[in-house]
Amino acid sequence: MCGTTENPTSNSKTSSVSPANGNGGTIPPSDHVLNLEQGDPAVYESYWSKMGDKCTMVISGSELMSYISDFTSVCWFLEPALEAAVRRLHRTVGNAVVDGDRHIVVGTGSTQLYQAALYALTSPGGPEPVSVVSAAPYYSSYPDETDYIRSALYKWTGDAYTFNKTGHGPYIEVVNTPNNPDGTLREAVVKNRGDQGKLIHDLAYYWPQYTPITRPADHDIMYFTFSKSTGHAGSRIGWAIVKDKEVARKMSKFVELSSLGVSKDSQQRAAKIMGVICDDYENCKSTDNSELFFDHCRQIMADRWERLRKVVEQSVVFSLPNYPQKYCIFSGESAEPYPARAGGTANDAWGWDNLSLKLGGCVDLED
Amino acid sequence: MCGTTENPTSNSKTSSVSPANGNGGTIPPSDHVLNLEQGDPAVYESYWSKMGDKCTMVISGSELMSYISDFTSVCWFLEPALEAAVRRLHRTVGNAVVDGDRHIVVGTGSTQLYQAALYALTSPGGPEPVSVVSAAPYYSSYPDETDYIRSALYKWTGDAYTFNKTGHGPYIEVVNTPNNPDGTLREAVVKNRGDQGKLIHDLAYYWPQYTPITRPADHDIMYFTFSKSTGHAGSRIGWAIVKDKEVARKMSKFVELSSLGVSKDSQQRAAKIMGVICDDYENCKSTDNSELFFDHCRQIMADRWERLRKVVEQSVVFSLPNYPQKYCIFSGESAEPYPARAGGTANDAWGWDNLSLKLGGCVDLED
Repeated sequence: MCGTTENPTSNSKTSSVSPANGNGGTIPPSDHVLNLEQGDPAVYESYWSKMGDKCTMVISGSELMSYISDFTSVCWFLEPALEAAVRRLHRTVGNAVVDGDRHIVVGTGSTQLYQAALYALTSPGGPEPVSVVSAAPYYSSYPDETDYIRSALYKWTGDAYTFNKTGHGPYIEVVNTPNNPDGTLREAVVKNRGDQGKLIHDLAYYWPQYTPITRPADHDIMYFTFSKSTGHAGSRIGWAIVKDKEVARKMSKFVELSSLGVSKDSQQRAAKIMGVICDDYENCKSTDNSELFFDHCRQIMADRWERLRKVVEQSVVFSLPNYPQKYCIFSGESAEPYPARAGGTANDAWGWDNLSLKLGGCVDLED
Repeated sequence: MCGTTENPTSNSKTSSVSPANGNGGTIPPSDHVLNLEQGDPAVYESYWSKMGDKCTMVISGSELMSYISDFTSVCWFLEPALEAAVRRLHRTVGNAVVDGDRHIVVGTGSTQLYQAALYALTSPGGPEPVSVVSAAPYYSSYPDETDYIRSALYKWTGDAYTFNKTGHGPYIEVVNTPNNPDGTLREAVVKNRGDQGKLIHDLAYYWPQYTPITRPADHDIMYFTFSKSTGHAGSRIGWAIVKDKEVARKMSKFVELSSLGVSKDSQQRAAKIMGVICDDYENCKSTDNSELFFDHCRQIMADRWERLRKVVEQSVVFSLPNYPQKYCIFSGESAEPYPARAGGTANDAWGWDNLSLKLGGCVDLED
């Protein structure tokens, strides 16, 4: 999707909607999208289609009926198979620390986990809602997802760069890295945060097809999503990796109160698909990895970026940013980032400010 | 589950948790549960097990990947197959009006739809949160699900019988019928509600195995759940039937902001299972309906109530309520309600008030 971490329906000026992957989506007004791949099948869909029956999920009518997965777990509705698959996938990729008392919390997409994290990091009874900030340009749905319910626990406060810690009590900074919409690698930016600033790491795009994996992320609260890791957005599966047990428990409580758990059908499907990816990497004896999931998708993203750069080079109106290469511990070589969306800029001399707003935000490289 | 409409983890005095259906749940302290069926397989699980492959869901790795189901729909993440199945199921059972511009909104269980309805019926900027009430005894999770996020839009205000409309502005009454925990049929009870009172109908248990279907329900907002209709709680599928298009749109917006849609895997599975139920009823030529879903489950509930009444009759401590028979348009005969939980009372003369609190709330007749 274009212009959002997840949200396909955002109305912000810099966002857009692309046709669904053959599932009946309608096409938005053409002036909202610079879609160089209109009609192109999804990167991921074509890959999984080639996998045949390896990833086929079969669920009988009497399976997965209970609310409960494991009442002894901090997250009682987390399927043990998904928990194991998540840990295995991160060990395979090396993009997150999952060993040593890290707790897994499953959510209905990372959207729910973002809100669960805000809930877990705040408490009723404060003099005013806790400020939530993120460095601009930030994911266009953060403000709405923070404020729609008008919580007294937290409120969206905007750009972390301009957030003035002075005069504020506790606050939460959301670090989205690689960042949506501009693909940059991010760290917390609020200065002098002391012990009153808390962090949430949105790592939806910290996968090898989008960016070099420079180290296993090891933050207090970090979340990922099935939508961006493997392309299965329709399953609505996200997971958080949480250091503190009480925070994990509170996040689980949020998901319980919000939706009484998360689809087991989708949890099991996610576990199966993650397992296939890991099996393929473990069993691959060949030096040619081009048919392995992350390598295959990274190559497609590279090809698309190359084509996009060629088009944009011929333009005197638009330009695209260059991203520095970094050493990727997953591939074992220096690698260039290929963000899922391209944030272009327009040449002001053309006086197309309005057009640049519509086009400058994103080019959809996924659908 | 026992003591709640859905919530298997409630801590209220009158609620309890039973072992999961073979999925690893732990057993709660014995003084919380009068469980006459401990270890008994779930009513529904055994039924679906007998159905063999008819209800088996098969999903390939490349299916159901998009966020979007139908962008032309008020609820853009609702799978058309589920929408069609929901309408067909209600037409088959006769428990809700689904024709004539009724809109369907899917949710991650009815839990999410309850909150979506509160969101849809309120607006930011009011002088104070809108009061939310329900006639006591009410579902023990309503208060937490209303207040956990400390919304400025709405707040839990308690018993609808004692709610004083005077001095209050807009309010919302939740009508849960058949009611959890006491199985009674309900109507709105706040008097003189005028045009400032809005209603939400929680019809989770308005299915033939629990109660006579006296008429097709036809309320402004009514919601049902896959958990209680067929027993598939792990799929987290609920649906609302909504008269007003803008209310349906706002409820969909809530689900979008809360979780960016609902598992398509589970939506498709629900559609398939509902389809099998409807097919079976349509294709049944025999006068013996005992193998059809609702008839079969109703008979099991009847058997369990009979056994429970026999046990309780021998007690001088407890008594069970009697529910009046009503004509059921689904079965075409007069029928007795068989609530999913039995609310017993203790004989005060025994001075076991405390024990009655623990035991009086519920007996689990489902798991």
